[in-house]
Amino acid sequence: MTARRVVAFGGGHGLSASLRALRHCAPELDLDITAVVTVGDDGGSSGRLRAERGGLPPGDLRQALVALAGDHPATRRSAGLFQHRFAAVPVGVPGSGATGPGPAAGGDPDRDGAARRGTDGASAGTDGLSGHAVGNLVLCGLMELLGDPVAALEHAGAMLGAVGRVLPMSRQPVGIEARVRGADPAAPDEVRTVSGQHQVAVTTGRVESLRLTPSAPPACAEAIEAIRAADWLIFGPGSWYTSVLPHLLVPQLADAIVSTSARRLVTLNLAAEKETLGLSVADHLAALHWYLPELKVDLVLADGKAVGDPEPVERAAESLGARLVLAPVAVVDGTPRHDPAALGAALVPVLGADR
Amino acid sequence: MTARRVVAFGGGHGLSASLRALRHCAPELDLDITAVVTVGDDGGSSGRLRAERGGLPPGDLRQALVALAGDHPATRRSAGLFQHRFAAVPVGVPGSGATGPGPAAGGDPDRDGAARRGTDGASAGTDGLSGHAVGNLVLCGLMELLGDPVAALEHAGAMLGAVGRVLPMSRQPVGIEARVRGADPAAPDEVRTVSGQHQVAVTTGRVESLRLTPSAPPACAEAIEAIRAADWLIFGPGSWYTSVLPHLLVPQLADAIVSTSARRLVTLNLAAEKETLGLSVADHLAALHWYLPELKVDLVLADGKAVGDPEPVERAAESLGARLVLAPVAVVDGTPRHDPAALGAALVPVLGADR
Repeated sequence: MTARRVVAFGGGHGLSASLRALRHCAPELDLDITAVVTVGDDGGSSGRLRAERGGLPPGDLRQALVALAGDHPATRRSAGLFQHRFAAVPVGVPGSGATGPGPAAGGDPDRDGAARRGTDGASAGTDGLSGHAVGNLVLCGLMELLGDPVAALEHAGAMLGAVGRVLPMSRQPVGIEARVRGADPAAPDEVRTVSGQHQVAVTTGRVESLRLTPSAPPACAEAIEAIRAADWLIFGPGSWYTSVLPHLLVPQLADAIVSTSARRLVTLNLAAEKETLGLSVADHLAALHWYLPELKVDLVLADGKAVGDPEPVERAAESLGARLVLAPVAVVDGTPRHDPAALGAALVPVLGADR
Repeated sequence: MTARRVVAFGGGHGLSASLRALRHCAPELDLDITAVVTVGDDGGSSGRLRAERGGLPPGDLRQALVALAGDHPATRRSAGLFQHRFAAVPVGVPGSGATGPGPAAGGDPDRDGAARRGTDGASAGTDGLSGHAVGNLVLCGLMELLGDPVAALEHAGAMLGAVGRVLPMSRQPVGIEARVRGADPAAPDEVRTVSGQHQVAVTTGRVESLRLTPSAPPACAEAIEAIRAADWLIFGPGSWYTSVLPHLLVPQLADAIVSTSARRLVTLNLAAEKETLGLSVADHLAALHWYLPELKVDLVLADGKAVGDPEPVERAAESLGARLVLAPVAVVDGTPRHDPAALGAALVPVLGADR
């Protein structure tokens, strides 16, 4: 049996969940996993590195690498190192950060720039390492040293014993811009342009249109190759506007996604995020169609409880050419997060089925 | 044949040369190499991390790890990453550091704090990564994450496929203080206290006495064990006051060094450095005796050309109980640097000889 080649698209926590789920299937299905990651982040540690050092924002790439890190204790420890975040220490207080356990707050500072900027973004009053994940600095250093993000990611993957490959959607960082209705709660009907992935991710208005800057960034050639050679493409879960849809806006990626002989699966989110407030589950599928009308999908995977009445979702899936598969894929504590083992168990019969 | 256990003491470039030379002997002699490294650095990248984050200054530890890094292309590349230094980028100039090849100037910024402080020390006008070696940040992160420098060094060694072990002389950073005559060229007879390893290393006055703060730091237990189990201890080459002598000032290390059944070798420097201007080759040996009178040495290895008239050096060696061995160990271009292959070739018959 030859390996089944799976390409997963996304960024941040959603892609991480998808990759962890794929790892659960990997032994049974002999999967060859490639992650293709958005490069639009401009918040938190990644945003600072991007602004100050150029190159790709490393946070989403790091998260994908860590999700694929090998199970050996040494590679698990290296993955822990990549995730370790330098705590904020006031400058001039020697050693005050030495015993800190790292990040005190929850959440993902890479995707939560505004919250962190208050404490570390300006670096006034704290040292320059505050808030940076070690893995972000390693990736930044590797990109400078090797001069190519794909080579840097390959080496970082080897450092982590990664059971798969991580690629950027483009070798150049991109900007994300949205036209948002009601971005200012005081003017609910006004449409404004919101710039930057971070601002789009936290907007509470309704995103009416999305675009990349530049509008047609060159796709990473290795990502195009992986899409062409794939058996399955997997979109989502993840922040729809800032992690899932951007791939469809890169013309060369969109071409490859539409023209490959691979089957296509969409994994839906469990709950709306700020950027998708007011967007129904069916609307998520409609957004895929809106931004890439030629996209045909084979399967849509969703959690029965999160979907509620399946009928509108089934119809939205059908309009993409897809069948809806419902499975219990959320963690059992009731928070809207995918359980990698449950999502993996749901993926096994899907990815393992013959065409 | 059981492995010959060698413990090399030092810091910075000198220890690096010693370790690279030992690697040249390793295949022939089946060496088991342990480096015991000073932890007094307070300049450059290491000094900033020590001041801002607490914990051990990582630069000398990093240099030793890199000197022992494995020969596999992947571990060589990781060693290159550890050595890669983030260039200084002006804050507010996006991407200006992206294409930089790293450190523009030669020298060792970890041991050259004053020179760098002008450009990056205060971090005013540059971002917080400027001047940091990636390996320093990795070690700093590992020490925070694992809570113990020995565990951190073990993991970093595994990341680099190191063919030996690196230990700090103490788990606590130390200060170095010297009484220096003529530190101020305008007052050549005045004796002043010079504080900090960096300031001592660059003083052009004559060091009259040296001490650590605290005066009796606890030795790293694993270093004591390694000394007790060793077949050979190797001191030098290196900055005599700031890299070689500090080990002798740690009481528990001094006890172990004096009482072990291991043989002891001193490798002399090829030229005086700022801190040892006015110190003859024989004076270097006398300094060992001054700071640890009980120290007996078996062999002193020196370069014939650097020594000149061997007679006073022979006498100084004899007063330590040692025989002087002359060998051509310098690089052939005339700069006062040890050639690892030549130093290794000189060490093979020495370390390989039966007692």
